[in-house]
Amino acid sequence: MSGNCIGEKLKITVFGQSHGPAIGAVVEGFPAGITLDWDALSFFMARRAPGQNAWSTQRREADRPKILSGLNEDGVTSGAPITAEIENTNIRSSDYPDLHTFPRPGHADFAATLKYGDQWDHRGGGPFSGRLTAPLCFAGALCIQYLKEKYGVEIAAHIARIGSISDDVPDTVHPALPLYEKGAFPVINSQAGEKMKEEIEAARQAGDSVDGQIRCIVKNLPGGLGGPLFQGLEGKLSLGLFGIPAVKGVEFGETLHRGSENNDPYCVEEGRIRTLTNHHGGILGGISTGMPLHFTVKFKPTPSIAVPQQTVNTKEMIETEMALRGRHDPCVVPRAVPVVEAVTAIVLTDMILQGA
Amino acid sequence: MSGNCIGEKLKITVFGQSHGPAIGAVVEGFPAGITLDWDALSFFMARRAPGQNAWSTQRREADRPKILSGLNEDGVTSGAPITAEIENTNIRSSDYPDLHTFPRPGHADFAATLKYGDQWDHRGGGPFSGRLTAPLCFAGALCIQYLKEKYGVEIAAHIARIGSISDDVPDTVHPALPLYEKGAFPVINSQAGEKMKEEIEAARQAGDSVDGQIRCIVKNLPGGLGGPLFQGLEGKLSLGLFGIPAVKGVEFGETLHRGSENNDPYCVEEGRIRTLTNHHGGILGGISTGMPLHFTVKFKPTPSIAVPQQTVNTKEMIETEMALRGRHDPCVVPRAVPVVEAVTAIVLTDMILQGA
Amino acid sequence: MSGNCIGEKLKITVFGQSHGPAIGAVVEGFPAGITLDWDALSFFMARRAPGQNAWSTQRREADRPKILSGLNEDGVTSGAPITAEIENTNIRSSDYPDLHTFPRPGHADFAATLKYGDQWDHRGGGPFSGRLTAPLCFAGALCIQYLKEKYGVEIAAHIARIGSISDDVPDTVHPALPLYEKGAFPVINSQAGEKMKEEIEAARQAGDSVDGQIRCIVKNLPGGLGGPLFQGLEGKLSLGLFGIPAVKGVEFGETLHRGSENNDPYCVEEGRIRTLTNHHGGILGGISTGMPLHFTVKFKPTPSIAVPQQTVNTKEMIETEMALRGRHDPCVVPRAVPVVEAVTAIVLTDMILQGA
Amino acid sequence: MSGNCIGEKLKITVFGQSHGPAIGAVVEGFPAGITLDWDALSFFMARRAPGQNAWSTQRREADRPKILSGLNEDGVTSGAPITAEIENTNIRSSDYPDLHTFPRPGHADFAATLKYGDQWDHRGGGPFSGRLTAPLCFAGALCIQYLKEKYGVEIAAHIARIGSISDDVPDTVHPALPLYEKGAFPVINSQAGEKMKEEIEAARQAGDSVDGQIRCIVKNLPGGLGGPLFQGLEGKLSLGLFGIPAVKGVEFGETLHRGSENNDPYCVEEGRIRTLTNHHGGILGGISTGMPLHFTVKFKPTPSIAVPQQTVNTKEMIETEMALRGRHDPCVVPRAVPVVEAVTAIVLTDMILQGA
Repeated sequence: MSGNCIGEKLKITVFGQSHGPAIGAVVEGFPAGITLDWDALSFFMARRAPGQNAWSTQRREADRPKILSGLNEDGVTSGAPITAEIENTNIRSSDYPDLHTFPRPGHADFAATLKYGDQWDHRGGGPFSGRLTAPLCFAGALCIQYLKEKYGVEIAAHIARIGSISDDVPDTVHPALPLYEKGAFPVINSQAGEKMKEEIEAARQAGDSVDGQIRCIVKNLPGGLGGPLFQGLEGKLSLGLFGIPAVKGVEFGETLHRGSENNDPYCVEEGRIRTLTNHHGGILGGISTGMPLHFTVKFKPTPSIAVPQQTVNTKEMIETEMALRGRHDPCVVPRAVPVVEAVTAIVLTDMILQGA
Repeated sequence: MSGNCIGEKLKITVFGQSHGPAIGAVVEGFPAGITLDWDALSFFMARRAPGQNAWSTQRREADRPKILSGLNEDGVTSGAPITAEIENTNIRSSDYPDLHTFPRPGHADFAATLKYGDQWDHRGGGPFSGRLTAPLCFAGALCIQYLKEKYGVEIAAHIARIGSISDDVPDTVHPALPLYEKGAFPVINSQAGEKMKEEIEAARQAGDSVDGQIRCIVKNLPGGLGGPLFQGLEGKLSLGLFGIPAVKGVEFGETLHRGSENNDPYCVEEGRIRTLTNHHGGILGGISTGMPLHFTVKFKPTPSIAVPQQTVNTKEMIETEMALRGRHDPCVVPRAVPVVEAVTAIVLTDMILQGA
Repeated sequence: MSGNCIGEKLKITVFGQSHGPAIGAVVEGFPAGITLDWDALSFFMARRAPGQNAWSTQRREADRPKILSGLNEDGVTSGAPITAEIENTNIRSSDYPDLHTFPRPGHADFAATLKYGDQWDHRGGGPFSGRLTAPLCFAGALCIQYLKEKYGVEIAAHIARIGSISDDVPDTVHPALPLYEKGAFPVINSQAGEKMKEEIEAARQAGDSVDGQIRCIVKNLPGGLGGPLFQGLEGKLSLGLFGIPAVKGVEFGETLHRGSENNDPYCVEEGRIRTLTNHHGGILGGISTGMPLHFTVKFKPTPSIAVPQQTVNTKEMIETEMALRGRHDPCVVPRAVPVVEAVTAIVLTDMILQGA
Repeated sequence: MSGNCIGEKLKITVFGQSHGPAIGAVVEGFPAGITLDWDALSFFMARRAPGQNAWSTQRREADRPKILSGLNEDGVTSGAPITAEIENTNIRSSDYPDLHTFPRPGHADFAATLKYGDQWDHRGGGPFSGRLTAPLCFAGALCIQYLKEKYGVEIAAHIARIGSISDDVPDTVHPALPLYEKGAFPVINSQAGEKMKEEIEAARQAGDSVDGQIRCIVKNLPGGLGGPLFQGLEGKLSLGLFGIPAVKGVEFGETLHRGSENNDPYCVEEGRIRTLTNHHGGILGGISTGMPLHFTVKFKPTPSIAVPQQTVNTKEMIETEMALRGRHDPCVVPRAVPVVEAVTAIVLTDMILQGA
């Protein structure tokens, strides 16, 4: 219950603060005998890494995980907990004011001080920093490899919307999954992608930030995972997805107003039972149906903006104004795409390993 | 992990199938020494009960819970698990076809058979039935009373939308909470309410069903509940809310496109730190801020419709048509309003009791 | 964490108080498709039931469980939670004094009042009563049937000691498991059994009670269950076994002083790797080795005795004397034998279903 | 469920293998605002460390934990997970044969291969090594400090027996707790201690090992912790204690044969209700009574011995003989004394933080 952790048979514990010595994750319950694909892992983590292009923060970090445990002498997973450590090397604490006293609007600062008192590590947002998604991506990369190799499960997310610019809705019955290159802008329609970049650039120019939405698709997930009520796949996935900083909403499938148009008729396709449409998003009664999963995740605009904002000096109880300097993403959405994939992979691997 | 259960310090286990002998719940960890308000409990459960008016199913049930354990000789909670049993008395199994062989579109039937084989109790949807929300309301009513008496926490949900008709958005900074009478249509704007009823009636006439959305507001919740990552209040609430049958989406607060308009400035009001607006919905960094919680829950249209639909005879692998008869709600949303309140109360009570 | 519950994939929640309306259990995660053997279940529960012979309490109860949920229309397990209710029919509350004010030495009364205040249901010991082992036996009987049918696992416990009289130590390498008749005295050596009965009878005559020990053996348990540290089979089993009222100690295998005599040499027997001796009790490194499990469970003498004892009137803080009347077992050990088997079966079924 | 982890509100996750890059622990849920006493922590960990005297292994390691997360800029606990890493620096893998093929009698090797296949990290016993108790001691030291400072709780264990030599039984009603110096032999009666050392030395001379028992006493634990059935303090403590390598038995209090002598009469002492004797060991009905806890933990003799033993070449299924060389403790008991204290502190801190 006290946990930076998620999962039951596969359990991920994330640790670290933005400006502490290191961040990392312990991955318990990962199967023995898997030879990790380090190239795929590096590539995946690089998709999340900052500082690679115009539309993300300039903080550059190696983010190369050091493995402390869990591999045997041949570098193969051994069944013991896998621990990855990522050093914090590029820290400029002076960028940050005293956040216990001057809470930033839209950030966790005020709420954190309510909970932990003035002792929480406020430097760079401490444990609330988006930086904590790096170890999540490490854990997710292991799961993505495992799901792909053992079950043929494929997970791909894309930007569904930035501000008021939306991407195309993919075919969710027979989706073709994109594979994003490092630094690529993860959209389906590249023209929409260009407009999204403009939207982000406009926000940056204004010292402002912009919101957005990510859609995630999962192919080849076995049917029969999940269950009624609190065993449902939606609840398990949403518990993970709301763990990603800045997420405000999660929606499964695409719901139409009338039952007669929203219900997906069953059909026989190549000897298998499928649905003609996929409004249900691959889950009915909390259980996977064998159709592709699809769901969207809504992100708020980065709260860190250069535009001056009103806050309160909490020690003196006086309203005051603050403007934030430093390196800030005007939009977290592009870098969050692999994070959504990672969390999805973690939750689904846990469900599969549980036989749930 | 295998659970019709939710919570850690307060743990609710729901049991039963639509057409089995009984449904019910075990409530573990509820504090000792509480004298239950039976009138309030009956009133609350009646808000969910079917058969009371034109816009809900005609199945009438007493739904009077029988308490098997957890009270002492004076009828006061004793600290032991509280078990409530609700008999299934009004069962017409013949309304239902063989759902293992003829899965209803939009229902759990096909997915359930993938998971459990042909042994799951398909009568009336078995463990997937909306009827299982009755014991949830029992448990929720206990929590609502506890939260109100001990912390002054108040929870009220209303219909935010039916089909294309939306209710007014309430003031989320200083909300006035409605108290719904039994059988009342739970909206803020009664004119919108009338149009919603028309929308439901139109669906019923067409042998169809209609979707909708519920907004829930929580006042006086203490700040400091929750935490970063997977400790977040959003994740815990969504795990509960997605446990309600037919829920497809959960969204916290109200997100605007630009950070400068979405961030809620801090201010001092009557000696307390608050925010001028409440786009964040009472949660930042996964932690309650002391502002009112508000979130919306999206429901799909009832999958049970009289309109003929295509399905598959799964034993013979032949596409076929089915039309459902029987008593069906053309819209689950009105009766789901207290269920959303109940689940919210359960999750928040657990968090408070945990000191989380 | 707040739980009268145990297990993860198979989760048992026990509810009820000695003199409340009913006791019972919810069994979640039990596999679908099992046709319960009601005769075996009744027989097993009867081994625990009181009032059948000279050496147990005279309280007679039917203890016939009523199934509220979890079976389908054919009476086969459906995958939904199985709920059993056992009514409390033979209640004589007047046998008991006010236990909040006059705590019985050796009983939970004083500790319970420290925890719950005066609201806990003290009648007959409330939730601390040995009567709560009846629903445990119900759940255990399901697991015993499942383990036997699916894995050939056999579980048999016997009395290892009553007071100062010990039973023979069985061959733990190739044990022959006894099958106890209803009402039979569960020992290996019937001569020792006669002396044990005399020991119990002597305690009864003296208005006193006597302690003892139970040994449990499990045959055909698959190897590879458990894990290092807190995943260990010993820890999981002991968590369950200490849940039985009056248990004070648990010991696995039989430990000799010197490593050279305690280590069990490996050998090849009928093409399988086994150990020549079985001091390790079937578990090494927290993991089952494929050898028979054996462990002993130590029970204290029943604290309910007719001999006058000193207690304190806790309201007036005055030392006083009390003598208990009513129906008390002079020794809980004989009736606890099936309870040890039940808890063992519950824990092992959970481990197997987890793939742990 | 898959866990090298223990606890609910305070959750300890242990990672690492004997000969991997590092071992360590993540401590979640530890309160914010605690200034760690590094001297006490070092001192405590040194009590467990090897190589300090004649009666322990010669493997010398610094075992100085490096803190990766959880402290704020002032070195005070911040509420975020505390991660400690201990490097493995003094590794002589060549001491060890191929344990997948030649399982050592009495060790986890064979069982581990059953569970994980040949991929588990067998070097030095991998995740089963007693070395994993170092991070447990780190976590335990934090808890010991917290319990002492906030609640005055004191925990002290001592050797109760080595082979056939027993220490004195302390007064368990008003115990005087010893504070052990680094390298001190933790006994009550130093004459018995000398004989125990002789027993250990005799085993070493013979290339053999010897078993023993540890008694642990906890003073000033608040009453009211725990609960009936599976909430009991005995079950929670035993789950932790059986997580210590080589533990085979746990027993609470001291049980006498007859109820009339075993029941502890209540009395009033200095205005508080206590018991005249303490056979119950501070726990009744699974709940702490406010009396000192006392329990014993039984350890088997170290399975690593120089005496030749029979094993099986598991690849060729041929019985063979093996003799182990390398640095082995002839008796783990002296170094396990702080480990028992650590685990006890971890479990009790969790219970207190839960308000359980």
